Amino acid sequence: MKSKHLLGLYGMEKEDIELILDNALAFKEVLERPIKKVPTLQGKTVVNLFFESSTRTRISFELAERRLSADVVNFSTAGSSVAKGETLKDTARNIEAMKIDIVVIRHSSPGAAHFLSRVLKSSIINAGDGTHEHPTQALLDMFTIREKFGRIENLNVCIVGDILHSRVALSNIFGLKTMGANVAVCGPKTLIPRDIEKLGVKVYYKIDEAIRNSDILNVLRIQLERQDKVFFPSLREYHLYYGITKERLQKFNRDIIIMHPGPINRDVEISADVADGSQSVILQQVLNGVAVRMAVLYLLGIKN
Amino acid sequence: MKSKHLLGLYGMEKEDIELILDNALAFKEVLERPIKKVPTLQGKTVVNLFFESSTRTRISFELAERRLSADVVNFSTAGSSVAKGETLKDTARNIEAMKIDIVVIRHSSPGAAHFLSRVLKSSIINAGDGTHEHPTQALLDMFTIREKFGRIENLNVCIVGDILHSRVALSNIFGLKTMGANVAVCGPKTLIPRDIEKLGVKVYYKIDEAIRNSDILNVLRIQLERQDKVFFPSLREYHLYYGITKERLQKFNRDIIIMHPGPINRDVEISADVADGSQSVILQQVLNGVAVRMAVLYLLGIKN
Amino acid sequence: MKSKHLLGLYGMEKEDIELILDNALAFKEVLERPIKKVPTLQGKTVVNLFFESSTRTRISFELAERRLSADVVNFSTAGSSVAKGETLKDTARNIEAMKIDIVVIRHSSPGAAHFLSRVLKSSIINAGDGTHEHPTQALLDMFTIREKFGRIENLNVCIVGDILHSRVALSNIFGLKTMGANVAVCGPKTLIPRDIEKLGVKVYYKIDEAIRNSDILNVLRIQLERQDKVFFPSLREYHLYYGITKERLQKFNRDIIIMHPGPINRDVEISADVADGSQSVILQQVLNGVAVRMAVLYLLGIKN
Repeated sequence: MKSKHLLGLYGMEKEDIELILDNALAFKEVLERPIKKVPTLQGKTVVNLFFESSTRTRISFELAERRLSADVVNFSTAGSSVAKGETLKDTARNIEAMKIDIVVIRHSSPGAAHFLSRVLKSSIINAGDGTHEHPTQALLDMFTIREKFGRIENLNVCIVGDILHSRVALSNIFGLKTMGANVAVCGPKTLIPRDIEKLGVKVYYKIDEAIRNSDILNVLRIQLERQDKVFFPSLREYHLYYGITKERLQKFNRDIIIMHPGPINRDVEISADVADGSQSVILQQVLNGVAVRMAVLYLLGIKN
Repeated sequence: MKSKHLLGLYGMEKEDIELILDNALAFKEVLERPIKKVPTLQGKTVVNLFFESSTRTRISFELAERRLSADVVNFSTAGSSVAKGETLKDTARNIEAMKIDIVVIRHSSPGAAHFLSRVLKSSIINAGDGTHEHPTQALLDMFTIREKFGRIENLNVCIVGDILHSRVALSNIFGLKTMGANVAVCGPKTLIPRDIEKLGVKVYYKIDEAIRNSDILNVLRIQLERQDKVFFPSLREYHLYYGITKERLQKFNRDIIIMHPGPINRDVEISADVADGSQSVILQQVLNGVAVRMAVLYLLGIKN
Repeated sequence: MKSKHLLGLYGMEKEDIELILDNALAFKEVLERPIKKVPTLQGKTVVNLFFESSTRTRISFELAERRLSADVVNFSTAGSSVAKGETLKDTARNIEAMKIDIVVIRHSSPGAAHFLSRVLKSSIINAGDGTHEHPTQALLDMFTIREKFGRIENLNVCIVGDILHSRVALSNIFGLKTMGANVAVCGPKTLIPRDIEKLGVKVYYKIDEAIRNSDILNVLRIQLERQDKVFFPSLREYHLYYGITKERLQKFNRDIIIMHPGPINRDVEISADVADGSQSVILQQVLNGVAVRMAVLYLLGIKN
């Protein structure tokens, strides 16, 4: 990889994305073995700095790190010096001074990972920074697409839901465009950023149009915990207009693939039968996430 | 073992219980070595899903897992997607998708472990589900009894205290009956389930009767944090009528063994001098807990 | 080492301090390698009992333990039986019963580590007990001084700030005196213990005097979270009279070394340019902390 960090997919070259996906394929094979462990990062130290709550991303990274035999230290805001008013910079520099090879950071502020990459010498992996980027999620989404279709180029991918607040959407758009896919978004006007077409992205306001024109739907989570401002009348109404249901999919009878970064709100943005159905690759995405994170950790770790 | 899970002792056959206790004996020997570690579960992954607070059970499982060289991932409710409203099923299936071999679950809902065993392919170990079962606690209790007496059959075991809310009591009753012990319970009427005799259990309402007729007293913790409903007039009164004290034990001058699953309320259900005295095997129980959990993890882990 | 515990530097002999510092030097060399790991404590178990929040000390110990290949179990107050009212003694004895070799404890009560050393058989390492001692911090401070000056004897060390509430100050005073340094303290009268001269310590009330007469300033953190009682008029005023600034250091043009145990309050007790400047060894202290803790863990671990 050209960079020693993975901060986002904006500006990342096709060759680097392919390198990660190819390595992830090899690591996925490791995950299918009875002994799911390789000595690749033995004696290297990875710190998981999670300033936002997370289940799957944190566990996925932690499993990836342990299966590469790295030493893992977890840090979360609770019970830490952050409570004593220390700055992110000082916290990070102090942890780095203990000879850390890779820092995985999740933070609510856009740019937190970039900031760390400027003040630290360790490799930084962005595990989600506010509404900005979540590159390993987009990489695992692309890995899953390539696994299903054998390629990413020229496929029609539509991201559905709250595009405005979604770091998953943004990283997917950057990565998919670089890989030559045709990218669209779909959602209510209030949840689509104004100038999104400038990123080379098509906009559908009707879910039926999105289904008719897509090979893959990447259905985003409606973030119930952020609904202090009202972006749509009710969850019921959202489900009525944008929920992915069996009926809707059958109407067009297309061999469309359904993705979701999780956690799912069953029967809000996606109906339970679709989430658990044969077109859904949601659980494959979860497994692929471990493989993709192993690949990223490996490619950055061997640079240190 | 016949089952790929350990959900409870209800219905478990004598041969399986003996298999676990025999293996635990071998692992206890490992715990007495300077290097308390074996490579048995290397490359296997165990997730500890703790939805209820716990010290000893969590640490006991974690030590058992590490000493078998498994990769361990801890998950607790705080800082997790459970806060985002995800269902237990989705949380568990997502974690399992990352190629987990064994899931250890503690949950406040009776049946949570059974539920997981129906939706997951991993082996499930019940580390306590509400007021239902806590099988590894009962197994370590039986291991301790067998260690002290050389057998379990025909011994008189009395469980003392809040039987109504106790998963420890229920698992002990199931396991001890299967192993041929004579089981009794003792406590105030408000804390004894109505139809408990139907399980083949004797009931004593007076602690002196229990002491006179038992080889082992398994003294349960009065769960102070659950005393929103009043089951007895006061802690002072409970201690007066049911507390296990030196005076009471000396009155009958019997070579009786005192067990307690911990944590202890000193001078409530048990006086400090009894808890720390020569008849108490409370700390042996704690060590045996690690050995028994290693045995269970080993027997389930080799099936995967 | 003569003792099987590290409870404090009070009364510790010079030979033992030197033994730790010499071993730390060897471990620091390990930390500079690409594979920062040795098998020294393989199969040994260390429990980190943190009853007070901490970032750097907890992570520093955890890294030291993992890099010695120990099995590590973390315990913090949240989500533990401490919430159920269990005493420290019972919590500790129960954890020890699981065959623990070393217990690292941080607690808000002075004497907590001593107390554990009387009730447990494991080796105890004090990671900070209230306002009493924090011996590994003082050891890493002395290691850093020796690294910079080649010796500790006859150097003039001044500890600046809230001496009254500081376990770091107390451990430093004990250790430095034993090693033959000249120790002074500096701060407002309200933050200097009354009889501190009886420990053989000089007192400066003016920071300029401290700078003029010292080779090393060890600048303590103003503990903003403890400012319920008012010990000085305002942070602004504190910075004005006691803050270590570039101007102040340049006034005397001395080759003085600046230490700080962290976390830093930038522009309160120390200005940002001094903290990040060429006279500061703050980040070296952090790295040395891991090496010193590895040395202590090693020296105690081989006794078990």
